[in-house]
Amino acid sequence: MVKEDPKKTIKVLGDKIVDQINKGKNPEISFPLRNLSNIVYDKKARILKLGDKYGSRSFFNVAHTKKFLQTIEVAKVSNDLLKEEKHASLRDVFYQVKRTIPGTKVNLVDEQTESDKAIEDLELITGHSREQLNITANKNGAVAGRVIIEDKGDEIDWSKLGSGGWSIPSAVENIKFKKVNAKYVLYMEKAAVWERLHEDKFWEKHNCLIMSSQGQTTRGIRRLLQRLYEEYNLPIYVLADWDIYGAYIYSVIKYGSINLAYASEKLTIPSVRYLGITYQDIEKYGLQKHLIRMKDTDKDRIKQVSAYEWFKDNKAWLKQFEMMKKMDSKAEIQALSARGISFISDEYLPTKIKEQDFID
Amino acid sequence: MVKEDPKKTIKVLGDKIVDQINKGKNPEISFPLRNLSNIVYDKKARILKLGDKYGSRSFFNVAHTKKFLQTIEVAKVSNDLLKEEKHASLRDVFYQVKRTIPGTKVNLVDEQTESDKAIEDLELITGHSREQLNITANKNGAVAGRVIIEDKGDEIDWSKLGSGGWSIPSAVENIKFKKVNAKYVLYMEKAAVWERLHEDKFWEKHNCLIMSSQGQTTRGIRRLLQRLYEEYNLPIYVLADWDIYGAYIYSVIKYGSINLAYASEKLTIPSVRYLGITYQDIEKYGLQKHLIRMKDTDKDRIKQVSAYEWFKDNKAWLKQFEMMKKMDSKAEIQALSARGISFISDEYLPTKIKEQDFID
Repeated sequence: MVKEDPKKTIKVLGDKIVDQINKGKNPEISFPLRNLSNIVYDKKARILKLGDKYGSRSFFNVAHTKKFLQTIEVAKVSNDLLKEEKHASLRDVFYQVKRTIPGTKVNLVDEQTESDKAIEDLELITGHSREQLNITANKNGAVAGRVIIEDKGDEIDWSKLGSGGWSIPSAVENIKFKKVNAKYVLYMEKAAVWERLHEDKFWEKHNCLIMSSQGQTTRGIRRLLQRLYEEYNLPIYVLADWDIYGAYIYSVIKYGSINLAYASEKLTIPSVRYLGITYQDIEKYGLQKHLIRMKDTDKDRIKQVSAYEWFKDNKAWLKQFEMMKKMDSKAEIQALSARGISFISDEYLPTKIKEQDFID
Repeated sequence: MVKEDPKKTIKVLGDKIVDQINKGKNPEISFPLRNLSNIVYDKKARILKLGDKYGSRSFFNVAHTKKFLQTIEVAKVSNDLLKEEKHASLRDVFYQVKRTIPGTKVNLVDEQTESDKAIEDLELITGHSREQLNITANKNGAVAGRVIIEDKGDEIDWSKLGSGGWSIPSAVENIKFKKVNAKYVLYMEKAAVWERLHEDKFWEKHNCLIMSSQGQTTRGIRRLLQRLYEEYNLPIYVLADWDIYGAYIYSVIKYGSINLAYASEKLTIPSVRYLGITYQDIEKYGLQKHLIRMKDTDKDRIKQVSAYEWFKDNKAWLKQFEMMKKMDSKAEIQALSARGISFISDEYLPTKIKEQDFID
């Protein structure tokens, strides 16, 4: 990760273009290509990252002009945000750059996908994450445990926030950890499961942190998990439904996502481990009656995900996918409630963690 | 709202059935009907509520037996939860009641809709909300402002929680307000807008609370808004996209929803007001360029919603719907960002509130 001041990096970019113009050259920006042909799975580092193909955009090239302008425009927006010390969402940035190019009837962007792509380019060009460029995505999720942080001048104790917990912001780069007292982090894909564990004082009894979003993991959460791993060496365990979406949620935290491969080094946690639900759990705890039949879309998605390079040699996962197909089934975390409302806190999780019964 | 102890109410229900059995009678439960024909819009109280049609379920009636058993079973689950002082999600309850009826091959419930309906029945029979019966839905949303609460033994200051805010739990019945220092509550449908206002210290400058979910408003949030209104007389203003979904989000907070009409008195806030976005805002601030074209589904939904009794005589809203159709458009809150990233905090909201420019 680039530790330099993002304002400086953007200034360098601007200066370079002004210099090219002053010298009568065709203004040009170059950066690594982001299309699938340039996405590489690094087996050693175990992350998705970009290959070494480079592209460039120049102003006096009919195929490039608009994208060149879009990139410069989002750089300007980011520069303003950094100067004003404000953050904007992807959607805000879209509205800020959506205007007619003076002297024409052409909009600089028509769809948010265009400004989003320009922002991704800017991340690549500058080497800063979009959060460092003060551009954020949606916030979601809650956390609880024995951690004290400092954020915006407030000291916040994650162990003293009642039944709600701390609401995780979209950008966590500037949070300072003052005290971290936990053996591991348990991340789950469901807010209702988080409430179950919180009420059972799971983090208190087992000296860990519990963290959750609802569905897909936001970038704010991924970065927070990564910081806890990198700065405090906390193991991260993921608890998800036994279905292809649960597996993918896990893989995004571990390896990164295709869309954000360019940001992988910033957001992956190769050491993260999958705790459950597995088909072995279903057999061990007799949850067969609580399986849900797969839909055709589930089956199609299994086919797709199995073929990803970061799954296709992973025997443990391929076996899970095979069992999903064989049993034509998926299972939710909450199926454990069939064994009693606190079975998950009192029996399932402690056993799993004690026996280190994980999938890698 | 019934202030009685829910454990007592459930015991009364159980005792009554045991008594019927002991007297050799056909065990029977009666309660108000929940179907559309029995949903009434109370023009005076301005809420959706149930009419006076009653239904009953008895054990020795082939059409009733299963539903009768389902109701008794969720009453048992709720009773256990209340005794153990634990909460379960709707999904958890489904898994807890999903079992084979002894001596048969019939499952007590096959789909969650069945256990959900049994829980709704139990709410009607007992007069307690499902949160009072320790059954919750998903948690979502964050809040910030000058309020100090006590929850689960923790004292929590909503003004000292950094960039994240307090994560709102699914059940807020037991929260104690220790200090409430605010003139109104601003509720918005988008988490990204909440982060914008929070960063701009909107609640600090304007002495209010800011609260948000993402999309639909959870029951936890609705009840929290209602408590702030009822116990502290705080006006509630809603900020939503200018589209039919924004209008509906507003109407659910104000009048209740069709599904939950039976719980209306517990969850509506008839005095809540809609702050924006309106088509007048779009004209006033020149946002015409930032409109989004409607889809066919938007148009169908406008037709549906316009016909609801609580909208069909409301001229201000009908005018909004008419303009959506005429302009074939909708607009997001974030369109205001086209006027500058903090335009919403510095100009739009203060003007709206100062001029009391609301729709009722």
